[in-house]
Amino acid sequence: MNTHAVKAFGAAASDAELNQLTIHRRTLHPSDVEIDILYCGVCHSDLHTVRNDWGGTIYPTVPGHEIVGKVTNIGSAVTAFNVGDTVGVGCMVDSCRTCDSCQQDLEQFCLNGFTGTYNGQEKYLGTPTYGGYSERIVVDEHFVLRVPTNLNAAAVAPLLCAGITTWSPLRHWKVREGSRVAVIGLGGLGHMAIKLAKGLGASVTLFSRSEGKMEDARKLGADEIIISTDSAQMKSVKGRFDLIIDTVPYIHDINPFVGALKINGTLVLVGYLGKLDPMLNSVPMVMGRKSVAGSVIGGIAETQEMLDFCGEKNIVSDIELIRMQDINTAYDRMLKSDVKYRFVIDMASLK
Amino acid sequence: MNTHAVKAFGAAASDAELNQLTIHRRTLHPSDVEIDILYCGVCHSDLHTVRNDWGGTIYPTVPGHEIVGKVTNIGSAVTAFNVGDTVGVGCMVDSCRTCDSCQQDLEQFCLNGFTGTYNGQEKYLGTPTYGGYSERIVVDEHFVLRVPTNLNAAAVAPLLCAGITTWSPLRHWKVREGSRVAVIGLGGLGHMAIKLAKGLGASVTLFSRSEGKMEDARKLGADEIIISTDSAQMKSVKGRFDLIIDTVPYIHDINPFVGALKINGTLVLVGYLGKLDPMLNSVPMVMGRKSVAGSVIGGIAETQEMLDFCGEKNIVSDIELIRMQDINTAYDRMLKSDVKYRFVIDMASLK
Ligand SMILES: [Zn+2]
Ligand SMILES: [Zn+2]
Ligand SMILES: [Zn+2]
Ligand SMILES: [Zn+2]
Repeated sequence: MNTHAVKAFGAAASDAELNQLTIHRRTLHPSDVEIDILYCGVCHSDLHTVRNDWGGTIYPTVPGHEIVGKVTNIGSAVTAFNVGDTVGVGCMVDSCRTCDSCQQDLEQFCLNGFTGTYNGQEKYLGTPTYGGYSERIVVDEHFVLRVPTNLNAAAVAPLLCAGITTWSPLRHWKVREGSRVAVIGLGGLGHMAIKLAKGLGASVTLFSRSEGKMEDARKLGADEIIISTDSAQMKSVKGRFDLIIDTVPYIHDINPFVGALKINGTLVLVGYLGKLDPMLNSVPMVMGRKSVAGSVIGGIAETQEMLDFCGEKNIVSDIELIRMQDINTAYDRMLKSDVKYRFVIDMASLK
Repeated sequence: MNTHAVKAFGAAASDAELNQLTIHRRTLHPSDVEIDILYCGVCHSDLHTVRNDWGGTIYPTVPGHEIVGKVTNIGSAVTAFNVGDTVGVGCMVDSCRTCDSCQQDLEQFCLNGFTGTYNGQEKYLGTPTYGGYSERIVVDEHFVLRVPTNLNAAAVAPLLCAGITTWSPLRHWKVREGSRVAVIGLGGLGHMAIKLAKGLGASVTLFSRSEGKMEDARKLGADEIIISTDSAQMKSVKGRFDLIIDTVPYIHDINPFVGALKINGTLVLVGYLGKLDPMLNSVPMVMGRKSVAGSVIGGIAETQEMLDFCGEKNIVSDIELIRMQDINTAYDRMLKSDVKYRFVIDMASLK
């Protein structure tokens, strides 16, 4: 199998800083698209993988799954893309394509496991997959997205993970004009949830623990900010929301938010993996037919739908552009939530 | 306000046995229907109310909310019923009729609180409402149901609570031909869930802790029985079900059942009010867009739909007919789950 070397940035061990290294990309298969990476967003998952927080990281690892670039070459069977197109790649670069989930455009739930953009298994080479902190990537066209040309390409990058992660539940639970949506937490996911829900015509409330975020939330489009530690404010939104998108990544009590759901409402967890502690109380769920659910990224067709919607509505992420060489500092700042709201790497800095 | 005295059976205190007593029913208002009660099912809620397990019981209390009878008189404005009709009354005898929920035929979620058939507040008299352990009841026609005449009237009674409690989630979560439904627990609710899901064309699995229920479950229509304490059997149904109806009324671990849900599946609690202990794990919910929800009885229109469906499909409850005077023994047996699957009181015994 022919490969070609490309420059990348990655970590050699869980306690190592990220540094420049060389990885190999496969040569084009008939359905492959080769992409020159222009920008790559920095997701919390990148950091967790580098530091092996979830276990299973194979080193060296090259993170990055919010990729925007230009097509530089296409395989003989590619029909959807041409050289020069601006395209995106998100969290997945492959899946089985045949299971129930894949056949329903739900590749994120591929029953055989989708291939992650990094730390997955390269379909042809058998090596780990390497992500977007690199010059170029080769991806099957089914997993390549069209990027609307009217949008700032750098600010589009976070749509490929943070955007679709919040878009998918908004669509699955049928948010539309007049829906009442609340978002818990104002970070990378939360700020996209506000923009996208607002774009869909919903009224949007942000739940935050700090007063400090009020002005920022309003600028992003929130109609209302509720301080979740203030019981009078929480009481004022009892029974209010059709959908609550909970983006909080650490352990927290969701019971007060279940109380803020309307009859038939759903609270969907998109940021927290673990036990619901303190215990969830079934009483308001039974007495109001309320649901607690989870959701992860979104399918490829749905991701394209989201990008097209963002093109129409002029929605992008709020970003801070950094050089590849500043990634270690960026990780430190991210851990302190010191970013509004997503770092994006300008890949020109790697070249 | 004119009232008339009727014979009833009720409890004078939380530690008292049920005995005969006299209650008063209002005289007919224009939209009222007077019903001569023929049969009344015995629900666990009856027992909990009598023993004040949930607090708030007003004594003397007369339970019973699975009522089937004959219309003996109608108010001047009644349009849907005639004297002689066989009718039913379930858990509700009134609601505000104007709130968002009521306007959507979701009287069970009336934002002003529906009027319970017993231990509620009588709209005109201001007294507590008294249930179906009595000769007659007077109910606004909106809360009176038509009972299909081809069905055994005694065996219809439990449809008014156990039936609608399981029908409503089956319909809300769109169970149809080919759906895969599981039911946890084989009691009053569970046996109705099996029959109704089967009637809708679903394949139905019963989760039970004991092998002993296998034959009975098959007779009721279950396609499969999974012993929930057997990890090999539980593993065999991983990712299988669109909807799981959990009828278990006491604290139990729902995590293994969440694992048995398909992508996009829902586990709905209809029997348990309290904390989810052990704690619910969000990982399978997020990674498979699974939901945990609750549901309580159903709306009036939905209850009529269920009765009509049961008429068409010849579905009734499996019952043991008792005399009113045997109610105290019946409660004791119910606490030991010694009933297949619902006691129904033959009200002729009271007269
Ligand atoms: Zn991500
Ligand atoms: Zn698949
Ligand atoms: Zn009941
Ligand atoms: Zn109401």
